Amino acid sequence: MIENKVGRLIPEEVNGRKLIPFKGAFDHISDGEIKRRIPPPAKQKEKKLLKSIREAIEKCGIKDGAHISFHHHLRDGDYVVNMVMEEIANMGIKDIVLFPTALFPVHQPLVELIEKGVIRRIEGSMNGPVGYACSTGKIKDTCVLRSHGGRVRAVKAGEIKIDCAFIAASAADQYGNATGTFGKSRFGPLGFSLVDSEFADKVVVITDNLVDYPCHPSTIKSTYVDYVVEVDSIGDPEKIVSGTTRITRSPTRLQIAKYAVQFLDEVGVIRDGFSFQTGAGGISLAATKFIGDILKERNIRADFVLGGVTGLIVDLLKEGYVKVLLDGQLFDEAACDSLLNDPNHIEVSVEESYDIHSKGCIANYLDVAFLGATEVDLDFNVNVNTHSDGLLLHGIGGHQDAAAGAGITMITIPSYRNRLPVLREKVTTVTTPGETIDVIVTELGIAINPRREDLIEKTKGSKLPIMKIEELYSKLMKITGKPEEPELGERIIAIIDYRDGTTIDVVREVRE
Amino acid sequence: MIENKVGRLIPEEVNGRKLIPFKGAFDHISDGEIKRRIPPPAKQKEKKLLKSIREAIEKCGIKDGAHISFHHHLRDGDYVVNMVMEEIANMGIKDIVLFPTALFPVHQPLVELIEKGVIRRIEGSMNGPVGYACSTGKIKDTCVLRSHGGRVRAVKAGEIKIDCAFIAASAADQYGNATGTFGKSRFGPLGFSLVDSEFADKVVVITDNLVDYPCHPSTIKSTYVDYVVEVDSIGDPEKIVSGTTRITRSPTRLQIAKYAVQFLDEVGVIRDGFSFQTGAGGISLAATKFIGDILKERNIRADFVLGGVTGLIVDLLKEGYVKVLLDGQLFDEAACDSLLNDPNHIEVSVEESYDIHSKGCIANYLDVAFLGATEVDLDFNVNVNTHSDGLLLHGIGGHQDAAAGAGITMITIPSYRNRLPVLREKVTTVTTPGETIDVIVTELGIAINPRREDLIEKTKGSKLPIMKIEELYSKLMKITGKPEEPELGERIIAIIDYRDGTTIDVVREVRE
Repeated sequence: MIENKVGRLIPEEVNGRKLIPFKGAFDHISDGEIKRRIPPPAKQKEKKLLKSIREAIEKCGIKDGAHISFHHHLRDGDYVVNMVMEEIANMGIKDIVLFPTALFPVHQPLVELIEKGVIRRIEGSMNGPVGYACSTGKIKDTCVLRSHGGRVRAVKAGEIKIDCAFIAASAADQYGNATGTFGKSRFGPLGFSLVDSEFADKVVVITDNLVDYPCHPSTIKSTYVDYVVEVDSIGDPEKIVSGTTRITRSPTRLQIAKYAVQFLDEVGVIRDGFSFQTGAGGISLAATKFIGDILKERNIRADFVLGGVTGLIVDLLKEGYVKVLLDGQLFDEAACDSLLNDPNHIEVSVEESYDIHSKGCIANYLDVAFLGATEVDLDFNVNVNTHSDGLLLHGIGGHQDAAAGAGITMITIPSYRNRLPVLREKVTTVTTPGETIDVIVTELGIAINPRREDLIEKTKGSKLPIMKIEELYSKLMKITGKPEEPELGERIIAIIDYRDGTTIDVVREVRE
Repeated sequence: MIENKVGRLIPEEVNGRKLIPFKGAFDHISDGEIKRRIPPPAKQKEKKLLKSIREAIEKCGIKDGAHISFHHHLRDGDYVVNMVMEEIANMGIKDIVLFPTALFPVHQPLVELIEKGVIRRIEGSMNGPVGYACSTGKIKDTCVLRSHGGRVRAVKAGEIKIDCAFIAASAADQYGNATGTFGKSRFGPLGFSLVDSEFADKVVVITDNLVDYPCHPSTIKSTYVDYVVEVDSIGDPEKIVSGTTRITRSPTRLQIAKYAVQFLDEVGVIRDGFSFQTGAGGISLAATKFIGDILKERNIRADFVLGGVTGLIVDLLKEGYVKVLLDGQLFDEAACDSLLNDPNHIEVSVEESYDIHSKGCIANYLDVAFLGATEVDLDFNVNVNTHSDGLLLHGIGGHQDAAAGAGITMITIPSYRNRLPVLREKVTTVTTPGETIDVIVTELGIAINPRREDLIEKTKGSKLPIMKIEELYSKLMKITGKPEEPELGERIIAIIDYRDGTTIDVVREVRE
């Protein structure tokens, strides 16, 4: 075990892969090459349309130990991961390494396949029951979590080889051009799968809406697709685009959003041409609303919003208070309509948004990112993966990527949840290093990272409750008291990779 | 020297590269890997905007022998190639390998740089004076010609390493997102440079229209751009988009277009949902008009047109007789307006259109391609590069790619030009192998490739002047007489690569 830059002990190797301990947010320089196999020449009008998922599994030559990838654009409404994995199980194939961008509660049936030995490892975000199964030691190998940008980097760098990518699409043509922007199961952008389509040995598009060639718009190009399978339904529209994203009504959370926006305004960031990233959480939405109010009041315009797009942001676009929306994933029907119809609502790939090993991803041009946390600590390190009981229940998302890129990275969180303090001496798991976190905003107070002397200087004399993080911690301890430490086993059930391919922390088994 | 599949003698090596003789249109299976260097991590808002082309050349570390690439979307109106190359010459850098997608008469000043030793080799199409300089032995190394698709493949396969790509853009932002769709020097798609941006070590965007971030639409992404330079003008708008593309008025050429379209109609290809590729030549435009007339008369719709887009095709799109236009390059103002404003007019990259080493490029889904020729021969081989006097005056364009992909590849040409027969016993240079050519249409008669028994069968009893190619040849010889052979030297001044990376022919020096 080697101690890394954030003080965590990292094993030398997991699953046969040598680990590189985290060195600092911009300090690991990879000098590798991006490689992918050249496919053989395709013939005129080569037939790609297959009769069933089973036929696709057969034609792709999926064998024991194969690496299989999926995207999570269908979120908790997804049918495709379960359909494909059940078929793989039925065919008696074992030891699959699953490489999804994320899994959701709907993927509960995978737990049985894990127990049966069909799945030996997951490299990807596990939200909910699969994460619980991982935490409690059910998965054979050590799982690997990466940020959205880190996953793209890992694929390009050949750190993970995808044998077969299954790509759910709400519309596709017989040659594989595919989109998520229209059709009964529409879900918006399909950018999470772009890198998979380019680098996987075999690529299968699965759709419930086969359209005439050429399907357009299309994110996935026929140039990269081997096979197309039509199924009855790829997901439950009610759960794909939930339409339930609402601004928080909690006075505490509204207060946090108000503090955050007031802070940004006091440091002079909210001006004509600024940019921000926000998500679909209640506090983020409230902050977006308050920023919108300022834009309207002063009649100024943001250059771009990087989303996580909701109807709230779409309204700002429509009203002319945002020049363009750069959309990696969306959360409601209004955002779906907008992406399809408004040329200023632009789909972007994860590579464009978040890839550290690029010549500048969109995150690098953000003035502000609003991010959440399950815990933060006195070093400003952030945990978004585990709860304070140690259970691994959430993915990284773009957290590390946005934090490293944005001019001001702001964590907006209540100081405690269910009487448990969110601010800790040390976070249970380090997801995002404190050096990339600038401000922590809670209802109890605001803490600025001492590295950001500029922000400390600019807010001298502010009426906001700005204080040192240690002071905020003391204040919080008086309310919640010192929390209990989680009961963890010795076994490392997962590692948390940083976006540059180094390892920032490990997650240990939770004793049930 | 080794004889290849079309009977041409190919040297074992040129410029230190081992050549693979052409084996047949689909018979060379490359098993290589696609590689590119992983760039180091970019920092927040890293500065990319430079003051001058000279500063870009310095920052990119361009040295003697460097490989430099350009696109030809500005055609005969381009200022950028000359500007950059003059600056390189002024800085005393020598032995540059120039890797443009194509050069035009406007690039005449390069001839002086060739003579001075600034340029040692050109790998790319040379239309006009630079081709003449090459033909007459002025270029030090052996030049290499590739098709559009073949160029993309060569870059991806690492057959040519681009040290620096200079990308002219009619609009770009300070981080390098770039487009050709708007601005005073607009030229439409920018897809020729996409592969260069992805694979070049250094990428410089040169624009005369710096816009606020993010520039959109954008073909070239900031993720791949190192530097941006603003200049007064990237080209002469009058010559970039000429607006002079007109249907031929020559009765001979109109007759050829009529025969071609009637042939297609008799074999049942012009039906609802069909697709075709056409260019900006007079016969192609006439054929497009006649196809349009049929679509209107029968009230049917083509699924797509792959262009080479002109106003004529845009009109068909607007009137609903074509579902979508897939546009790799365009030729007039009407096409420019349409690309910018009509969501059914879609920009496509060369990789999507023409790459043989893909899982199916757009060319493979074409029902019909109309192509030209400087010569065709009794084996149906086509020459588009040299004239019958041996002078290398034209590039390959997408000729090989469209011919290999399309269901019916039709060469529409007058049987003779300036009293010189276009149909020959053997073409001076083989650009495109006869096995991928299906029908030759001249005003004297139509010849079907004997391989296409289906087409011969379907046109039995046709009133069209269909005859064996030997018969067509005899008929022509009675008019023109046997042509003289060109006077060629021994030296190989260029090789013609096939789209799969094998070599299909060589071009020899012409004695002045």
